[in-house]
Amino acid sequence: MRVVVNGLGEMGASLALAIKNSRDDAEIIGVDRNLDALNKAKKIDLVVDTSSDLKSVVADADVIILATPIRAIIATLHDLLDLTLKPGVLIMDTGSTKDQVMQAAQPLIKKGIAFVGGHAMAGTQRAGIDAVDGHLYDQVPYFLVSDDQDAVYRAKELLNGIGVHIIRVEAQQHDLMMAYLSDLPHVVAATLVNSTTQTLTDYPELPNYAAGGFKDTTRIGAADPQMWTDILMTNHDATLESLESFQSSLNRVIEALKANDATTIYDFFDHSKQLRQKF
Amino acid sequence: MRVVVNGLGEMGASLALAIKNSRDDAEIIGVDRNLDALNKAKKIDLVVDTSSDLKSVVADADVIILATPIRAIIATLHDLLDLTLKPGVLIMDTGSTKDQVMQAAQPLIKKGIAFVGGHAMAGTQRAGIDAVDGHLYDQVPYFLVSDDQDAVYRAKELLNGIGVHIIRVEAQQHDLMMAYLSDLPHVVAATLVNSTTQTLTDYPELPNYAAGGFKDTTRIGAADPQMWTDILMTNHDATLESLESFQSSLNRVIEALKANDATTIYDFFDHSKQLRQKF
Repeated sequence: MRVVVNGLGEMGASLALAIKNSRDDAEIIGVDRNLDALNKAKKIDLVVDTSSDLKSVVADADVIILATPIRAIIATLHDLLDLTLKPGVLIMDTGSTKDQVMQAAQPLIKKGIAFVGGHAMAGTQRAGIDAVDGHLYDQVPYFLVSDDQDAVYRAKELLNGIGVHIIRVEAQQHDLMMAYLSDLPHVVAATLVNSTTQTLTDYPELPNYAAGGFKDTTRIGAADPQMWTDILMTNHDATLESLESFQSSLNRVIEALKANDATTIYDFFDHSKQLRQKF
Repeated sequence: MRVVVNGLGEMGASLALAIKNSRDDAEIIGVDRNLDALNKAKKIDLVVDTSSDLKSVVADADVIILATPIRAIIATLHDLLDLTLKPGVLIMDTGSTKDQVMQAAQPLIKKGIAFVGGHAMAGTQRAGIDAVDGHLYDQVPYFLVSDDQDAVYRAKELLNGIGVHIIRVEAQQHDLMMAYLSDLPHVVAATLVNSTTQTLTDYPELPNYAAGGFKDTTRIGAADPQMWTDILMTNHDATLESLESFQSSLNRVIEALKANDATTIYDFFDHSKQLRQKF
């Protein structure tokens, strides 16, 4: 089974390695614009072949996994329309928002090509093929989005071997859940960091006094700016909904503090304490 | 040296233990409303004596450390005015906001009593004497607030033995730094948790999909509601300033997202990534 993986970053390379390790018949073909990544992939024996051009290797692929940043996934889904693909090819992606990806995949799906949107709740602060980890996907939730039962069956068959927990969802449900669990926390963490700008100018020693609370809450404020800009732009409506919900909730706390309303502030913290225990 | 510690919670009991371990002449007298805490303090040999009533043990104290919740510290500072204290007694507190404490201490200071406000950047999610840890203060920043050089000298002498890094600050500078490093992150974490309320009702499986980003960012959303209500109410102005600064910053992101302005969103994340590396 020839598996073309387009994008040998942390997610793509780790998925390729997990698939390679889980089945004897898997031959990985690695595609990346970055030649260093391709050389590294050869060096660690991840791939049987590499290319810097997806077009040149798709014709005999049994599976094509799109693991680039999300805007490139969307562009590639359009490019694939004009290429000759092997009959029965299964195309999947790893993008962290799904509604726009599924819309971009519609023309391929209408041509009868099997496409399954995918998103694993995995990944670290590291990036690139140097972060490759064959166990990155162990036991993680892995969302699949598709109305095509046969395609989902084949995707499950491929992914079951790597030990993920598969969950089928609708694209919009997926994106709303991710807005609250991931996009909103990233925006909030970055806003927290940025709101120290003036105080940091006034008191340059401020970082010496940051304890675990600040550090944990802002850790993802150091995430990759381009990746998170792309995620926000491609999960636009759900993220905006979550941001506005957060903003209303915050405004209520600010009003309560202005009014010296300790009861409302207590209830606010108490509700959070109860709810946080579910996570 | 008789050291009365009022409030045998995590901070007070751990400070008492660190002082006891650091000098042979220290005799700790533990005061708490909670009889279980007093029994535990005896059982672990932390104290030479205990009382549930501060008034009954202050007369021969060389040092009095107020380690209760902050509103109780303020009330106690008023109560102490009417009691007979040993000449030369040093009074300290451990409250996490300092401006209101220093104001409450003014009448004592005017009577010539040595008072030094204190706040250590230590503490865990645990609470009560069961969380006692003689190493809780190792290498942590410890703020001291006082204009009384002699009192500060004596407080330093007591605290140097427990291995803290002493920093002298003005009360208002301390409180503003804490607003950004601690109070604002706590409000934001709790707001993040609370803003999932509706989504959690719609999709009860939501917590299964929370990854490290959400968990880290919201960890302190499970903090003690009463303690944080007190901190917000006693660090009112600085917290409000930090909340309004955060709110403005967040509004700019929301407007940029509404306008599909990817450049502003990229700059926002990029600024945060740069700034976060200082912490």
